[in-house]
Amino acid sequence: MTTSDTHPATPPEAVDIVISHAWVLSHTEPAPARYPANSAGSRGTVTFLPDHSVGIRGNRIAWVRPSTHLADSPPQAHTTIDARGALLVPGFLNGHTHSPMTMFRGAAEDVRTEDWFNAHIWPMEVNLTRRDVRLGARIGIAEMLLAGVTSFADHYFDMDEVAEEVAEQGIRATLASTFFSSQGAAGRERSEEFAARWHGAAGGRITTALGPHATYTVNDQDLRATADSARRTGTRIHIHAAENMDQTLSSLSARGVTPIRVLYDTGVLDAGAIIAHGVGITQSDIPLLQEYADRVAIAACTKNYMKHAMGGGTPLRMLHDAGITVGVGTDGAASNNTLDVLESLRMLVLLNKNREEDATWVTMAHALDLLTRQSATLFGMSDSLGRIEPGFLADLVVIDLNRPHLQPVHDPGATLVLSARASDVSVVIVDGRVLVKDGRLVRDDVQDAFDELARRLPALTNRSHGLSIQEYAP
Amino acid sequence: MTTSDTHPATPPEAVDIVISHAWVLSHTEPAPARYPANSAGSRGTVTFLPDHSVGIRGNRIAWVRPSTHLADSPPQAHTTIDARGALLVPGFLNGHTHSPMTMFRGAAEDVRTEDWFNAHIWPMEVNLTRRDVRLGARIGIAEMLLAGVTSFADHYFDMDEVAEEVAEQGIRATLASTFFSSQGAAGRERSEEFAARWHGAAGGRITTALGPHATYTVNDQDLRATADSARRTGTRIHIHAAENMDQTLSSLSARGVTPIRVLYDTGVLDAGAIIAHGVGITQSDIPLLQEYADRVAIAACTKNYMKHAMGGGTPLRMLHDAGITVGVGTDGAASNNTLDVLESLRMLVLLNKNREEDATWVTMAHALDLLTRQSATLFGMSDSLGRIEPGFLADLVVIDLNRPHLQPVHDPGATLVLSARASDVSVVIVDGRVLVKDGRLVRDDVQDAFDELARRLPALTNRSHGLSIQEYAP
Repeated sequence: MTTSDTHPATPPEAVDIVISHAWVLSHTEPAPARYPANSAGSRGTVTFLPDHSVGIRGNRIAWVRPSTHLADSPPQAHTTIDARGALLVPGFLNGHTHSPMTMFRGAAEDVRTEDWFNAHIWPMEVNLTRRDVRLGARIGIAEMLLAGVTSFADHYFDMDEVAEEVAEQGIRATLASTFFSSQGAAGRERSEEFAARWHGAAGGRITTALGPHATYTVNDQDLRATADSARRTGTRIHIHAAENMDQTLSSLSARGVTPIRVLYDTGVLDAGAIIAHGVGITQSDIPLLQEYADRVAIAACTKNYMKHAMGGGTPLRMLHDAGITVGVGTDGAASNNTLDVLESLRMLVLLNKNREEDATWVTMAHALDLLTRQSATLFGMSDSLGRIEPGFLADLVVIDLNRPHLQPVHDPGATLVLSARASDVSVVIVDGRVLVKDGRLVRDDVQDAFDELARRLPALTNRSHGLSIQEYAP
Repeated sequence: MTTSDTHPATPPEAVDIVISHAWVLSHTEPAPARYPANSAGSRGTVTFLPDHSVGIRGNRIAWVRPSTHLADSPPQAHTTIDARGALLVPGFLNGHTHSPMTMFRGAAEDVRTEDWFNAHIWPMEVNLTRRDVRLGARIGIAEMLLAGVTSFADHYFDMDEVAEEVAEQGIRATLASTFFSSQGAAGRERSEEFAARWHGAAGGRITTALGPHATYTVNDQDLRATADSARRTGTRIHIHAAENMDQTLSSLSARGVTPIRVLYDTGVLDAGAIIAHGVGITQSDIPLLQEYADRVAIAACTKNYMKHAMGGGTPLRMLHDAGITVGVGTDGAASNNTLDVLESLRMLVLLNKNREEDATWVTMAHALDLLTRQSATLFGMSDSLGRIEPGFLADLVVIDLNRPHLQPVHDPGATLVLSARASDVSVVIVDGRVLVKDGRLVRDDVQDAFDELARRLPALTNRSHGLSIQEYAP
């Protein structure tokens, strides 16, 4: 329990920041359950503690107290943020994205998956310059911060540019440099070098992963070498697999194994992996995932699946019942059109209620668990992210409820999951630093990037060269 | 064509308001199609005219011009709104809602449809006072205005309160007083009296409809009497029907006819109707709807259908192919959790791409057509709403694109349909009056209603009386 860590009568320690009088999201186990979690039962419970205050010292949460306990002995703090009537929640975690792809937001609409890759995105990516990647990441990171996203798992090219932008803007990230086997050994080596060079950078805000693109673009030999390297260096792997059911069927037809089986056989699961999408995961994959359930998670990017007509999306119920972690992701803005984790969670919840033909499934509590604990587990950081408890990293978001579309509040969980918008984020703190205040970026509004990128669009979208960085033929 | 209504060299008439330098949404027919509409083809096309300006005189649009034509002879205007780089679109139309039900936002989550009615909403509605209805409508209308909704079709109890709030806040609405046959003749008579009393009120901003609740709560005799009254007085009917497939099956099983057939047989379709939901519309209903396609439309409230596990929602493709109008609605905030038409449109588009297993279906152009022309047709106002053309009512919305989650802009249609949020609405004009500026209500921030309604929640949500206003047993 978060509230009994110090005796109520003890004055709280002096801190750098106090956020006061909020509804504080809290994980309790075992329950006196306000929100009992869904069937599996082992997930603990999520509740909102009314009128609580939180102290931050350095980059960590120092204490969580009922505000009434502080009335007689107010805590000493450099900064006090009055969050009366607002929600205080762990920073949102984007489990899978390609932040620079904001540059292609809206550039490939109303097309099939194969055309999205072969006719639009991969031909346009021939035109990429490092500067484009920087500008795209700059806009994407600003977008995420403003939407309450405090960590993201990224997978793209020219990742030094993304890393530098992460360092500059103050967000937290797990970065992977994408490679295909078609690039020869160079792509894989570049991914390993990137991971080694940037791990722990930006005061620890940057962690890294290895970035084989997918089971259909990276051969087994390279996957094995990647898994070996990952195990040797203690690095995780971030990879696309079973992105849709067609990929699974085509893998079965061509090789007699599912994409998840390929990850199992090549040691990728053993090394620990973020698997993007997993829409084509089958029942036969479940035991393979269960064997490594402590280090493997699936990132669900549901808006993308609906837009590209991928049916039920990531099979949440099957994964949940098997104890496999599912985190919330957005994918890139070229497929999702935003990097809005709250919208992505809402789509995940609604599509799964619908898919299971059960309005009582994916409760509000379950949704909050996916948003916080499970997403933090996906990042391999469940001991430092996703909870508001002493010792956890101070990655926090204040959601302003004093707005017509959020009133009245019968249930703060439902308000967050079904009514709130990214624009209701008023304060964002990452690693103990206030990066968003009054809904605006404190440091830099990135308007410069809008103009510079707008001038690049004709060159970026030119496909007359007839080239492509890769062919989609899974 | 909207731009050639006056000769470029003619100075534009003096007006009250000029909105300048926007991307102006425009309906063109026949095409030089920027956005060709979906298969049916007969829907015209939608485009965004870059750097255009719009003049408003009184409550009407006076002219639409390329901004370059105005450089030499700037128009005279009392107010000029600089919308450089922003979108200017027709005000959003909410084709079905219960605005006062904001009072129950989040009060009935993770429950089946029958429990939503019988265990939660209908028992709580026993507790309603006229003041509650007023407060709920007050918050709901403020929420809608801030989200760019300029007209809504409402259906609830104590509608005088809603009408007064519409008059006060300046929005436009088509209002219906809900009745059940269980209320005897009084309910129907009250609905007729309300419609007669308020039609044309608030300077014409209020129109009315008759409000039989549904085919399963209003008997055929009352439906016939309502249809007769509607035809006699030239009033439309707003009714729930075929809300889900279970209702259709149970109607077929109990009576041998579908709910749409009931509307046909009782003369409701002939009188002209807004049909809420229609999720359970079958192929056999199509000829009945086609016979009255000039005066019948379906309001699709897709978020609600996903939340309540209603499968594919309103059968958009079947209706589209048959030439039946579909408007966008939200339903009440007790089921949708917001009154956000843009979110509702997004869910409609994404669920239908998914349902039809076709990412190329429901193009961005089709989405814009649903949002504008078809929704205006649902209101029976296609000659005065839903287009930015001289003579149309000045119900307009400016969407600010100068934000990270909307940059860059490859395609303004995709930006609006897939990336924008209600919070990107910066200016809202209804009937020629600016009601929202810089994303804030000009007149009244309705904060008073938050506190007053919060105090009412314990009494409102009390179900210990064991009563209900009705039983859900369709």
